[in-house]
Amino acid sequence: MAHMLDVAEGEFPTGAYSFTIRAEYANRPGMLGRIASAIGEIGGDIGAVDIVLASRGSIRRDITVAARDENHGRQIVEQVRGVEGVSIYSVSDPVLLMHLGGKIQVALRVPIKTRSDLSMAYTPGVARVSRAIQQDPGSVWSLTIKRNSVAVVTDGTAVLGLGDIGPEAALPVMEGKAMLFKEFGDVDAWPICLATKDADEIVHCVKLIAPVFGGINLEDISAPRCFEIEERLKQELDIPVFHDDQHGTAVVLLAGLLNALKIVKKNLQDLRVVVSGVGASGVACTKMLLSVGVTDIVGCDRKGIVYKGRKEGMNPVKERFAEITNPRGLRGKIRDAMEGADLFLGLSAPNVITVDDVKRMNRDPIVFAMANPDPEIRPEDALPYVRVMATGRSDYPNQINNVLCFPGLFRGVLDARASDINEEMKIAAAHAIASGVSKGELSEEHIIPSVFNKSVQRAVAKEVAQAAYRTGAASRHRRVYPKNL
Amino acid sequence: MAHMLDVAEGEFPTGAYSFTIRAEYANRPGMLGRIASAIGEIGGDIGAVDIVLASRGSIRRDITVAARDENHGRQIVEQVRGVEGVSIYSVSDPVLLMHLGGKIQVALRVPIKTRSDLSMAYTPGVARVSRAIQQDPGSVWSLTIKRNSVAVVTDGTAVLGLGDIGPEAALPVMEGKAMLFKEFGDVDAWPICLATKDADEIVHCVKLIAPVFGGINLEDISAPRCFEIEERLKQELDIPVFHDDQHGTAVVLLAGLLNALKIVKKNLQDLRVVVSGVGASGVACTKMLLSVGVTDIVGCDRKGIVYKGRKEGMNPVKERFAEITNPRGLRGKIRDAMEGADLFLGLSAPNVITVDDVKRMNRDPIVFAMANPDPEIRPEDALPYVRVMATGRSDYPNQINNVLCFPGLFRGVLDARASDINEEMKIAAAHAIASGVSKGELSEEHIIPSVFNKSVQRAVAKEVAQAAYRTGAASRHRRVYPKNL
Repeated sequence: MAHMLDVAEGEFPTGAYSFTIRAEYANRPGMLGRIASAIGEIGGDIGAVDIVLASRGSIRRDITVAARDENHGRQIVEQVRGVEGVSIYSVSDPVLLMHLGGKIQVALRVPIKTRSDLSMAYTPGVARVSRAIQQDPGSVWSLTIKRNSVAVVTDGTAVLGLGDIGPEAALPVMEGKAMLFKEFGDVDAWPICLATKDADEIVHCVKLIAPVFGGINLEDISAPRCFEIEERLKQELDIPVFHDDQHGTAVVLLAGLLNALKIVKKNLQDLRVVVSGVGASGVACTKMLLSVGVTDIVGCDRKGIVYKGRKEGMNPVKERFAEITNPRGLRGKIRDAMEGADLFLGLSAPNVITVDDVKRMNRDPIVFAMANPDPEIRPEDALPYVRVMATGRSDYPNQINNVLCFPGLFRGVLDARASDINEEMKIAAAHAIASGVSKGELSEEHIIPSVFNKSVQRAVAKEVAQAAYRTGAASRHRRVYPKNL
Repeated sequence: MAHMLDVAEGEFPTGAYSFTIRAEYANRPGMLGRIASAIGEIGGDIGAVDIVLASRGSIRRDITVAARDENHGRQIVEQVRGVEGVSIYSVSDPVLLMHLGGKIQVALRVPIKTRSDLSMAYTPGVARVSRAIQQDPGSVWSLTIKRNSVAVVTDGTAVLGLGDIGPEAALPVMEGKAMLFKEFGDVDAWPICLATKDADEIVHCVKLIAPVFGGINLEDISAPRCFEIEERLKQELDIPVFHDDQHGTAVVLLAGLLNALKIVKKNLQDLRVVVSGVGASGVACTKMLLSVGVTDIVGCDRKGIVYKGRKEGMNPVKERFAEITNPRGLRGKIRDAMEGADLFLGLSAPNVITVDDVKRMNRDPIVFAMANPDPEIRPEDALPYVRVMATGRSDYPNQINNVLCFPGLFRGVLDARASDINEEMKIAAAHAIASGVSKGELSEEHIIPSVFNKSVQRAVAKEVAQAAYRTGAASRHRRVYPKNL
């Protein structure tokens, strides 16, 4: 997803930024100590040290080192290379090694070990199944993978913080997304990385491939094309379409807000909200807040407060945004908007607000600063003056993480065979996520449940399916509770 | 595939055409006997008989019955319904039950059980992998699923013997194909069923989704569009494209022919061949035979022998076919072509040739009658007069079955990272399949190895990869032998 990290950054450098150095040197006492000291000097953290090959003359070792980041890793390698008598044989990277050959695969749900299996799963038996679907098109939902499959569709234009890197480079991210779909929602997701950036072509191609899928998850498509693509696909397809960067973020953010409000004892209706960033997720979060009863939202971009009639830096999306926000008609800079605000919602860029801005806020201020990797204000600076703070990062408390939403949400959608993902279903997901933190657990530092708490995903699935039935979006006749994850 | 069965028809009716009847009747002696007799009377074969529910008054049983075909199954159900005192509670169909929820799924190749796993497989770790691909586009082949994935693409226009049944009804067949790819080639294949029959749209859409895949398997697309679509995709894509209905059939047929010739002690160069059917597979088989040195091939369609200058029932494909075949300039009916022929190749329709036609053939005639489910001549009628006979059916000896080709072929293609599947690679596959029958095993009734002999698939993969290196189609730098299946 484009706007924030889903998981750990910094907290577990061993996983994300570790390397294994295969070094060869003369087999004599003191050498390993020198190498270890060299690594320690510049802050490298040594993990496993293995012997690969040893002779009387020389020894070859694998030394695994955790670094702060990629650049730090390179420095460590150079540092080791600089130790006299040491030659570096190779440097391998566990993250790249983990990706070798891809992270997902296709598996059989039923065996084909005998001729009888073959004759049921393939010809001639399968012909009966095809005829059954031809005669009753709705049975494709029970007799095929469509029942449980989602296309993860991207054009590679807004991948993580990397921007427009193309469909091939986006593939590892989409595979990762497919893994999360399976692990947390038992949904079979397949990556579709399109070799085009043209909105018409994307819409057309997704419509052509739709027969195999029970839902479409749009991912990492840059604004403003993402709005048009989602809107058109929602209208033209009979399966649900969900742009996770917009709506997944909005759902998890609302979940966090619901819990934060319990702490500060305020109501949605009374909040004054400042939204920094009027892009895909800023607009989606604003719409979601409006739909749950928030009335006073002021949006800001690089030019300052967005208001009706502003001339500078507007576009059709912002015009529409100005229509439905800023009821007090504020103008000026973001600091003017911060005056008396209860909630600051950052979906923009690093260092957009200052400590002074935070001091201007109402009592018990809530700050969700989700710019990635560097938030709109450093948590260390803001924390003394805010009551509840959340970010997109896992190395601070309260990580707003989309993984809490999309697997369970699509599980519920598929279980109810929903033709659409409407506002009520998203709000139901937010409440289910918020309920994942019990009254006893709730605190300023714990408003969001862990992604590894699978009961949260189950609750999301159940609430989303029920909302689908309630709102008429479900098309499955018999009401079935979500399968056990 | 469109032109013949890949697996068992008739031979194992239990698998393909069995039903479970849940019947309820008064719990008294003799009732089950009456039911069993009723089923036996009309040829039903009783398998398992289970008690579902028994009270003093009544009993409910599941009776599994194998039938000859779907219609016979319905007759059996009606027969049981006719037994006095028996009411049928439900009839369930193991083939449909096996298909519930689909036959394939997505699975993880690496676990995500901890935050560290997550941070390597997804953000932030995955960003490094995306950057690596962005900087070195070729690394998409080692760091993603592209390395091992194939799209099984259809428009649902020529599915099995069912014809144009649409993309949804084609999906169970494509899932079956994906299962065979995985089971016999360890290839990760995903079904792409397109909601269009327009050749331009199909070509365009496949090009757009190509980044995720290492190869394209076209399937069950009707002629003549299948020729144009394959030709254009081969030219415009840098990954291999293979229309299995054409080339898979041709490969397995050549394998069978190579072994048949060992028995009759004839050479390819000296053969007179009659091909019945000038459709997708007829044309592909003819081209393959020409490329291995056969010179005298005469094609026939409903209008009789195809010759240069014929006016009736021609099209551009047949014009071209007439150019490269029929060197003796024959005209007339198929019976005229059969005079002195060494090989009859049927890829057409039932009962196209007679016993008299077979008698006209040269000594030790070979008849490959692959119309499906009913061959060009009944094996029972032909067998007294032919030396070697093969069909597309599993209930006669020598089944020409595409499953012997495509999984191993694509395994070899992916292992060599081939950009194309050329004639030499297909011929190599045919030789590998033929070699699957040892000298000692070879007989008139055994010219084709079993699909369950995985050493055949391994040999196909190895020979195809080596042919790819030999012909310059391989783009993988280091020569790697096919992985163990």
